Amino acid sequence: MALKQERAEQTRRALLLAAAEVFDEFGYAGASITRILKRAGVTAGALYFHFGSKEDLAKAVMNSQPDTLVPLLAASGLQRLIDLTLVWSWQLQRDPLLRAGVRLTNEQASIGDSLNADPYEKFRGIMTSCLQEAREEGELQPGIEPTVVAEFVIAACTGMQMYSNVVSGRRDLPERTQQMWNLLLPGIAVPSVITRAEATPARGAAMMP
Amino acid sequence: MALKQERAEQTRRALLLAAAEVFDEFGYAGASITRILKRAGVTAGALYFHFGSKEDLAKAVMNSQPDTLVPLLAASGLQRLIDLTLVWSWQLQRDPLLRAGVRLTNEQASIGDSLNADPYEKFRGIMTSCLQEAREEGELQPGIEPTVVAEFVIAACTGMQMYSNVVSGRRDLPERTQQMWNLLLPGIAVPSVITRAEATPARGAAMMP
Repeated sequence: MALKQERAEQTRRALLLAAAEVFDEFGYAGASITRILKRAGVTAGALYFHFGSKEDLAKAVMNSQPDTLVPLLAASGLQRLIDLTLVWSWQLQRDPLLRAGVRLTNEQASIGDSLNADPYEKFRGIMTSCLQEAREEGELQPGIEPTVVAEFVIAACTGMQMYSNVVSGRRDLPERTQQMWNLLLPGIAVPSVITRAEATPARGAAMMP
Repeated sequence: MALKQERAEQTRRALLLAAAEVFDEFGYAGASITRILKRAGVTAGALYFHFGSKEDLAKAVMNSQPDTLVPLLAASGLQRLIDLTLVWSWQLQRDPLLRAGVRLTNEQASIGDSLNADPYEKFRGIMTSCLQEAREEGELQPGIEPTVVAEFVIAACTGMQMYSNVVSGRRDLPERTQQMWNLLLPGIAVPSVITRAEATPARGAAMMP
C-alpha cells in the first residue's frame, strides 16, 4: 500500500513537471493533453486519476510555484523575504514549474476567468508571514503594514520579470531584484536592518540547489 | 490637400481606436481584421493604406499608450511622475487604447517575438525625463539614478495592474498606486519633497478629462 502510494505520487509529480514544461513552451492554448502524456510517459487513465482536466493541471502548476523556492531559504524576517525574491530571480531562469506558473498567470487575462485561480495567493501568504515576523522582531518602521508590502512586492516582482524578459530574456532579473530592495528598504525597514540586509545577486546564486 | 490630410488622419485615428477596442476585448489572436474594419466603418483599402498588417496595428496601439496620459499632467519633476501614474491608474479602467496596449503587452510572451515591439520604450522616455528634471531641481537623494527608478516604476505599475485586475477588476488600482509611492518616496526623494508630494487617488481623479 505504501509502495502503491509512492508510485502514485511519482506519477503525479511526473505529470506536473511534464505539464509545466509543455505550458512553459506552448502556453495554455497550445498545450495539448496528448503532448503532456507523451512527455510524462504515462497513460491518459493515470492523468485523469490525478487531474480532472487540462484546467486542473494548470491550476496545480500555478499553485506549486513557491514550493521550489521555500526550502532554499535560511534567514528570518525581512532577510527571508529578500532571499525569497533573490532565489526566485535565479530560479525563474531555469525552473519549469516556476516558468510555467508565470506564463499561465500572464495568460490568465487572455484565457479568461475559466481558470479561476488566484496565482498570487501562496506567495502572499509566505511573504506576509515573513513580514509579520519582521514586525515582531522590530525590523519594520512603525505604520508599515505587512499585507500592503507583501502585495506590492508580488506586483513589483511580477512586472519586473516581464520587463526583464523583454529587455534581457530575464538575465538581468537578479540585478533588478537588488535595485528593488535598494529603493524599497528605506521606506520599510529600521536603519539597523537597512545596513545589515543583503540583496546581492551573489547571495541568491549561493542559495541555489 | 489640407482637408484630404485631415480626413486621412481621422481615418487613421478611427482605425487605431477600433483596433484598440477589438484587441482589448478579444486579444491579439482573437482580433480579426474583418472585425476591426467593421468597428471602424472603413474599407480594407483604407486600412492597408495606413497599416501594413494586424501586427503593424498592434504595434501602433502599443506605442500610443502614453499619448492619452501626458496632456493631462500639470506639475513638474517628481510630482509629474506621480501624476502620470495616478492618471494611468484611473484611465486604465476606461481608455481603450491604454487597455489594449496593456493586454497586448501581457500577451506578447504568448504571441512570441513576432511583434518585436518594446512596449515600455515610450513610458521609459517620459518617466526618465521627469526624474532627470527632479534631479536638476534637487528633489532626488544623492546616488538615485533616473533610469533605474523609471524602469522600476514601469515594472511595478505593470505588475500592480495585473494584481489589481485579478483581485478587484482594477478598481483598487488608484489606492495601490498611492501605496507604491508611500513605500518608494523615502528611498528616492529628499525630505521636503516627501512632505509635499501628493499621490492620493483623488488627485488623479481630479486630473481626468
